[in-house]
Amino acid sequence: MMGQIENCLGCKTLTGRINPPGGVIYEDDWWLVDHILPPIFIPGSVVLKLKRHCEHLAALNRSEASSLGPNIQSVSQVVQQVTHAEKIHVASYGEGVKHIHFLITPRTADLPASNIRLTLWLGFRRWLFKLKLSRREDPLAEVSELVNQLRFFITERND
Amino acid sequence: MMGQIENCLGCKTLTGRINPPGGVIYEDDWWLVDHILPPIFIPGSVVLKLKRHCEHLAALNRSEASSLGPNIQSVSQVVQQVTHAEKIHVASYGEGVKHIHFLITPRTADLPASNIRLTLWLGFRRWLFKLKLSRREDPLAEVSELVNQLRFFITERND
Repeated sequence: MMGQIENCLGCKTLTGRINPPGGVIYEDDWWLVDHILPPIFIPGSVVLKLKRHCEHLAALNRSEASSLGPNIQSVSQVVQQVTHAEKIHVASYGEGVKHIHFLITPRTADLPASNIRLTLWLGFRRWLFKLKLSRREDPLAEVSELVNQLRFFITERND
Repeated sequence: MMGQIENCLGCKTLTGRINPPGGVIYEDDWWLVDHILPPIFIPGSVVLKLKRHCEHLAALNRSEASSLGPNIQSVSQVVQQVTHAEKIHVASYGEGVKHIHFLITPRTADLPASNIRLTLWLGFRRWLFKLKLSRREDPLAEVSELVNQLRFFITERND
């Protein structure tokens, strides 16, 4: 892959220097989908990332822009199918990791149905984990099974 | 427009029952862009909304999905150009307003460069405003001027 950056987490997962749990879910010429990295608080949360290192949505080229919407639609569909989420959240901030990526998160019935409350809930969980006040283990077996299902359904869908 | 829902805020703006400041910025057959409604804490924040009432990204049809990416790219470009934002945030939660829409927010240099901190900052501003502890007035003249510029640049770009 062209134009990868040494210290970019997006590029590291694209070049196999870091391996997201369960492996690649889907890829086309411009985008790749894999699971978020540990610590995992919401299993089935995936990342749709641009294969090229690029830091601004304004700078997407024509092919990257054209394939973005169909990928958001198909990934949302399979994530909803597999996790039974009530809503799929799609967001691109690119602040911590500047490489263009969209977080696609299943907001299941047990999670707060509000962006602000969900952000606070996630922040609180991360803070507990960081301070080692939570003894949670990453649900890697569950994630691996979800990733297998996501890969199966998205491949079947695109065939 | 077909399939509008009585109590949906998305449908209300699409049918002119509520008028976002500055008017329509851009529309094609499937999507429409206008400014967020008051109270406005980040001028230049716009909404890319589906013209049809539909509540799940999984249910986008082929034309809606194909035109989504190019719209995210072009709107991000003109919002960045007009507001000089360091980063453009794009997010679709659809919890408060279920009608599919993407919030496109200019994260300018004076705002926290983190989704969690920006969400908290916005939540705090909204809370102060709700409790009438802030005496801010909506920056409607500034918003109107920004909307004019956005409309000009996106039209020029697509010509």
